[in-house]
Amino acid sequence: MKLNNHLCGQWLQGAGEGVPLLDPVSGEELVRVSSEGLDLGAAMAYARDQGGSALRAMSYEQRAACLGQIAEVLSANREAYFDISLRNSGSTAADAGFDVDGAIFTLKTYARAGKVLGAARQLKDGGRVALAKTDVFQGQHFLTPLQGVAVFINAFNFPAWGLWEKAAPALLSGVPVLVKPATPTAWLTQRMVEDVVAAGILPPGAISIVCGGARDLLDHVDARDVVSFTGSADTAARIRNHPAVVAHSVRVNVEADSVNSAVLGPDAVPGTAEFDLAVKEVVRELTIKSGQKCTAIRRIFAPAAVATALADAVAARLSGMTVGNPRTEGVRVGPLVSRAQQAAALEGLAKLKLDARLVFGGDPDFVPVDADPAVSAFVQPALLFCDKGLDAQYVHDVEVFGPVATVLPYADPAALVAMVRRGGGSLVASVYSADAAFLCEFIPAIADMHGRVMVVDGVIGNQHTGHGNVMPTCLHGGPGRAGGGEELGGLRALAMYHRRHVVQGGSSLLDALCEGAADAALLGA
Amino acid sequence: MKLNNHLCGQWLQGAGEGVPLLDPVSGEELVRVSSEGLDLGAAMAYARDQGGSALRAMSYEQRAACLGQIAEVLSANREAYFDISLRNSGSTAADAGFDVDGAIFTLKTYARAGKVLGAARQLKDGGRVALAKTDVFQGQHFLTPLQGVAVFINAFNFPAWGLWEKAAPALLSGVPVLVKPATPTAWLTQRMVEDVVAAGILPPGAISIVCGGARDLLDHVDARDVVSFTGSADTAARIRNHPAVVAHSVRVNVEADSVNSAVLGPDAVPGTAEFDLAVKEVVRELTIKSGQKCTAIRRIFAPAAVATALADAVAARLSGMTVGNPRTEGVRVGPLVSRAQQAAALEGLAKLKLDARLVFGGDPDFVPVDADPAVSAFVQPALLFCDKGLDAQYVHDVEVFGPVATVLPYADPAALVAMVRRGGGSLVASVYSADAAFLCEFIPAIADMHGRVMVVDGVIGNQHTGHGNVMPTCLHGGPGRAGGGEELGGLRALAMYHRRHVVQGGSSLLDALCEGAADAALLGA
Repeated sequence: MKLNNHLCGQWLQGAGEGVPLLDPVSGEELVRVSSEGLDLGAAMAYARDQGGSALRAMSYEQRAACLGQIAEVLSANREAYFDISLRNSGSTAADAGFDVDGAIFTLKTYARAGKVLGAARQLKDGGRVALAKTDVFQGQHFLTPLQGVAVFINAFNFPAWGLWEKAAPALLSGVPVLVKPATPTAWLTQRMVEDVVAAGILPPGAISIVCGGARDLLDHVDARDVVSFTGSADTAARIRNHPAVVAHSVRVNVEADSVNSAVLGPDAVPGTAEFDLAVKEVVRELTIKSGQKCTAIRRIFAPAAVATALADAVAARLSGMTVGNPRTEGVRVGPLVSRAQQAAALEGLAKLKLDARLVFGGDPDFVPVDADPAVSAFVQPALLFCDKGLDAQYVHDVEVFGPVATVLPYADPAALVAMVRRGGGSLVASVYSADAAFLCEFIPAIADMHGRVMVVDGVIGNQHTGHGNVMPTCLHGGPGRAGGGEELGGLRALAMYHRRHVVQGGSSLLDALCEGAADAALLGA
Repeated sequence: MKLNNHLCGQWLQGAGEGVPLLDPVSGEELVRVSSEGLDLGAAMAYARDQGGSALRAMSYEQRAACLGQIAEVLSANREAYFDISLRNSGSTAADAGFDVDGAIFTLKTYARAGKVLGAARQLKDGGRVALAKTDVFQGQHFLTPLQGVAVFINAFNFPAWGLWEKAAPALLSGVPVLVKPATPTAWLTQRMVEDVVAAGILPPGAISIVCGGARDLLDHVDARDVVSFTGSADTAARIRNHPAVVAHSVRVNVEADSVNSAVLGPDAVPGTAEFDLAVKEVVRELTIKSGQKCTAIRRIFAPAAVATALADAVAARLSGMTVGNPRTEGVRVGPLVSRAQQAAALEGLAKLKLDARLVFGGDPDFVPVDADPAVSAFVQPALLFCDKGLDAQYVHDVEVFGPVATVLPYADPAALVAMVRRGGGSLVASVYSADAAFLCEFIPAIADMHGRVMVVDGVIGNQHTGHGNVMPTCLHGGPGRAGGGEELGGLRALAMYHRRHVVQGGSSLLDALCEGAADAALLGA
């Protein structure tokens, strides 16, 4: 079966044999995708002309209501999505929930938040700017929705959330969406779009999907569009260097590699709640979605006196977790999404081993439960220990996209700051400490190189939202190697899909142009 | 004489013979510049480590005070700057004032505006985000100053304002500046930096300048830095594609070509104040700085019945303006800054002539007053008339960077919108009309493709701030071919020099981190 693409308001099949999508446990072929022969230029034009016009004719409030309806449709089909996740991504129920329920939660959050913008169709940004001695000539800034398409080139690890966390602010802004999911796991994204289109919630052209190769898609972007990419730094560079992107100064948002940190403060010694919370979170991050999260913990920093105890505690927990076919009772950790990802992870692990010694797992000959190593895509969870600090060649640079992390001891806070920053820009760092003096020094020293810093202590206990969880109300993104992008953060996310401009003129004209506009201050409130 | 570069807190001379800077009227050599042999990597490191640390240790208020002191130093040396402008750029007193006084005004504006941020050193962005059922775990967004360098690669047409309109928000943010002015007119920028450094206003490393080739400068940028470029689309593309910029997701702000529009509304017929105001502004834009402004009017749209009368009125005014040596009494229009610019402008004019007929000027054999055509860089002001509309091949795309503009008649508002948008993204459009119904349709139809729209009617009269004038309190920048950047717009400009991040944790920790932070809402107020 070849999955349909949805372009120009129609369901279209790509030409040729297509690319097979596989079950990463059995190797079985599930469906095929193809984008061959499709007119992507026409699809972009249709999305702009039909989808964009219709969306912009609606108010923020009306579009927010659409997001709520989309969340309902997805909730109604949740079981089907879990089944596709299991088959196409080898997801346990917890893994699938992380993706699918995360998508629904994000849509609901934006549906609720978007109501505050009411019947407006654009935003006024700040107050009147005086430009003459009287009010005869003034300035007024606005944020107006882009008249282009939000093009999402997405990663394989979040086929559900990856679409909707971007689509929610785009659609709420009045900008149509065209998503190209990563080929290996495109099925779930495609099914969700199919369900939403069938429900007739959005106007024609408001959502499009192309599965398979992106082909000439980027040749058709221009100044009106936004490209949002999640994936490898290499592909990000190709997008940024694309002639049409460069020629038209196309807005590009990138979320790429990130060698995220977990940090045990000087007080997080064995026997404390902070130590235990760190161990629990590290194990969760290593195993949920088999470590295939851009936010997952890759480096674990612990005071030198504590590092070995930490590694032992994490290893002990890992040893009790069953890795194998997620259809089997008791299995906690599934496969990677593909044999290619398995090979890449094992290659990365081999690099880390040049810097660090294995404390647990990472056996390439490991045998998963109820799965054939010859056809499946499993990687045994691995914990490493590196005492090279800043001299390590790979640990601070290589993001192994699987259940792999490295413990690094630190001698003092200055050494800790230098090593954490050595990641070159990260999505997130989590800190386990109740030492306010340490935290108030440490957090500002790393904050400019991170999109998010999470701090957990014994009082917070298990009430935190998780190192790896992206909350729709909080910023997701990070500088440098993390791609430099910004997603979510509540209504702030709408800024990417609006253009700021200023009108200079008489006060009665500015009054007329402001009529019905909402206050952009609501985005940051 | 070879101008010194200021790097690593020292005045350093580049190696070799250097590149001569010339008088565009006489062709006489004035000074030389060279960046050969200088260690630009060390300069970047020094700026970050010394300049950045010292600036960040100051409060916004203290840094605002520095901007005020810089404005005073520049005011005190204003005559010297006018002299350099005259000699190196061939500027009339009005042209030099546009650049030099614009710089001083911008610095004073930021000095005054920055006070509102008070004793703070960072900004809290929005309120607390609820993340648990109680306040035990919450989120707080911040904007924290970048720990890198603001690298300015600047254009030849604004050696004074081009530096300070960017440096004001960067320094106010606590980010050190390294400027590489365009070589042909680097002298004025260099002298201003020299005067400011000599005045001891800023800490060592807070401001650096390299004159001549940029050489390996961009090899040394990383995730902490910002690159702000003003100039051609070709150079902008090279910067965006630079390996270090791409690898480290370096923030890049570009202000490039722009084929700006002036629009006479359907009501702006001969005999109305709006018609006369349009004529006056078009002539001003054609002649001030000899049309060498990125914001200058390049296309003039008039109702079909009015276009010929408009062209005649503009031509009549142009014919009365003396073009020649700005040292000569009565001269209103000076040369372009170099023979290379002269050649490029004449080449562009030749392209426009394939679409349009000359109404006035543009004679390549024209003889300027008191200057030798064989060595000087004059271009006779030129007005063209094009009735090809959307079918024109060059008029909507070729930015002739000199005293050249084209009149285009329009049949109806829809045709007008299509032609204005055909510019592919512009810095500014000005509209001359008192027809509220027309304006309320037209402005939203073009706003997303512009950074600024100025509207002038008879009531506003001469109290507007000008089509081509960039006000520090209003956004400067534009989408698409205009580069996609954003500068100024009051304190909003500080966002480019800050990194947004969120801290998730307990409320007392967040209280401690917020201590002394100013509210980011002040940026947009």
